[in-house]
Amino acid sequence: MNPVRKCILSMTGYVPGESADSTKIVKLNQNESRFPPSPRAIKAVEAAASALALYPDSSSRKLREAASSVYGVPAGQVMAGNGSDEILRILFQCCCDPGDEAVAFHPSYTYYSTLAAMQDVRYRLVNFEGEYRIPKHLDLRGAKIVFLPNPNAPTGTVFPESEVRRLIEAVPDGLAVIDEAYADFSGQTSIPLLKEYENVVVVRTFSKSYGLAGLRIGLCFAREGLLEQMEKVRDYYNLDRLAQAGAEAALLDQDWLKLICSRVIASREKLIGQLRELGLTAYDSGANFILVRFGSPERARRVFERLRARSVLVRYFNSRGIDDCIRVTIGTETDMDVFHKELEHIIKEEPAS
Amino acid sequence: MNPVRKCILSMTGYVPGESADSTKIVKLNQNESRFPPSPRAIKAVEAAASALALYPDSSSRKLREAASSVYGVPAGQVMAGNGSDEILRILFQCCCDPGDEAVAFHPSYTYYSTLAAMQDVRYRLVNFEGEYRIPKHLDLRGAKIVFLPNPNAPTGTVFPESEVRRLIEAVPDGLAVIDEAYADFSGQTSIPLLKEYENVVVVRTFSKSYGLAGLRIGLCFAREGLLEQMEKVRDYYNLDRLAQAGAEAALLDQDWLKLICSRVIASREKLIGQLRELGLTAYDSGANFILVRFGSPERARRVFERLRARSVLVRYFNSRGIDDCIRVTIGTETDMDVFHKELEHIIKEEPAS
Repeated sequence: MNPVRKCILSMTGYVPGESADSTKIVKLNQNESRFPPSPRAIKAVEAAASALALYPDSSSRKLREAASSVYGVPAGQVMAGNGSDEILRILFQCCCDPGDEAVAFHPSYTYYSTLAAMQDVRYRLVNFEGEYRIPKHLDLRGAKIVFLPNPNAPTGTVFPESEVRRLIEAVPDGLAVIDEAYADFSGQTSIPLLKEYENVVVVRTFSKSYGLAGLRIGLCFAREGLLEQMEKVRDYYNLDRLAQAGAEAALLDQDWLKLICSRVIASREKLIGQLRELGLTAYDSGANFILVRFGSPERARRVFERLRARSVLVRYFNSRGIDDCIRVTIGTETDMDVFHKELEHIIKEEPAS
Repeated sequence: MNPVRKCILSMTGYVPGESADSTKIVKLNQNESRFPPSPRAIKAVEAAASALALYPDSSSRKLREAASSVYGVPAGQVMAGNGSDEILRILFQCCCDPGDEAVAFHPSYTYYSTLAAMQDVRYRLVNFEGEYRIPKHLDLRGAKIVFLPNPNAPTGTVFPESEVRRLIEAVPDGLAVIDEAYADFSGQTSIPLLKEYENVVVVRTFSKSYGLAGLRIGLCFAREGLLEQMEKVRDYYNLDRLAQAGAEAALLDQDWLKLICSRVIASREKLIGQLRELGLTAYDSGANFILVRFGSPERARRVFERLRARSVLVRYFNSRGIDDCIRVTIGTETDMDVFHKELEHIIKEEPAS
């Protein structure tokens, strides 16, 4: 007797970047914020810690109202999730029967495929064209969900609004999910498109720009009719009291967010220049990371390993088309100086080819 | 174009007991703890609030190790969830294809049916026999999951180990899930049965005895082989840093747990006596609540409404066989004195029948 579903038995679990709590390590591998969250968020969490015996507000009302005021949409078009991961899972469970099709692009965020597998959903990858444009010819008929991170991970590509519109309009039978995990670093958002399109969903996270990866909060923006159905699938008390309080306070401190984002953007642009001076291909990025191409998988892996040996953790993807790249999170100016110095050292020590 | 699955469109969402944050209300409707959690848990949460920018430990290792030491099972047989709700959802998603069958008893916890509906699973209710025994003849062939809360909610019934064994042995094709949300108030657990049976799963929550409903933590005890599959379905970073820290500290303060449980049990036994003196049927309970029978739905509803008007919130279930009952959470001695006084007043004012 094995009670486990075949689709679960045959799937592999998700493997994210490695964790490292040591302060000795310059952790640039998971695009967490290297800056602290808003001090108001920490205070709000501490205040909420005094009343933990009661269930939290199931609807995360105050957090959704804060999101409503910041993003200019009705609170009824906002759902809060236990990280954006939960929201993505809810989308699958709400919209996909076994055998349905979900579509994502390559190279892009790979967790969508894990979520598809656990819902027994067919998962189709569409290659980006060139360096990294949405294909001119798009046939997404039949797909129940199509995912587009904007900015894209791990490439950092920002798709202009016209391209996002073209994608949304190319999904006749399902949802176009715009995953805006990194949108605060690009300044561009598809949230206003909710007014025009019924099938658009925008997903946000507090794990990057807000510096609250440890608190697990995501937001989903969608039409009321869809959110009402998604509500049925959401774990009833999905967000604890501390996460609700911390996220609300973080949202209401937009000055802090802007300060952090401006520092990340300045560090990012400076590093892109430095990497190009080293003769490397560093892609333009609208996110808090940069994809750097080294020309061969061997060289990229060697750089990754040598950085690691020097306590600088970046991300290497053993994945088609980007296996000669590393992705580096943009941290503080000090972090970037360390990274640049170590990388320069490694490259200067390389044998002449 | 409606992208939502038919099984979701046709299901109704779960409706739990109402929330009420007002301190004026004596809240006895959701079996939350009326005592604070361990002060060590609060301190641990506050300490963890200073480092929220990094992702939490995906495996909740320290929390699981604490559970391992408290419950005497290997840490590899423990999974931590965002409330036991998430664990129950994972069990469905891991084991049930659409059309499979899940079984629960009646009257019992009803959230299982919501989880079944969202996974498109057939849900069969088996009536308890009399006041409230597992049926002598059990045919559970074909069921992928069978749920038994022990103690049962909302009746408070404790099933002796021999009965739990009989149930487990009657599930040849799936899992017997023993939901021990209230087990700390009965002192009986099926966790040791993991050594004997492959198909037993035990679920625990921190929302009742530990006084941490606002923090969302549940535990699942199962064989390693099953947990490895369930891990694939779990949201990768399902438990935030604060919940992990708070739950670990709460677990390691077993003295506090014992103190709270002993006070709840004393209040419970005293109230049962008082209710019976009022001529009411108050069922024996191994939980932090009592089911009280009033003889007619009208009377039970009237009592519920009058208590509510006097700021005492209890639970009324408009459900077959228990629609003439209310369920009251056992709180502090003061809470129970208020409840008893108000109930006595309401009953004395009733017209003679």
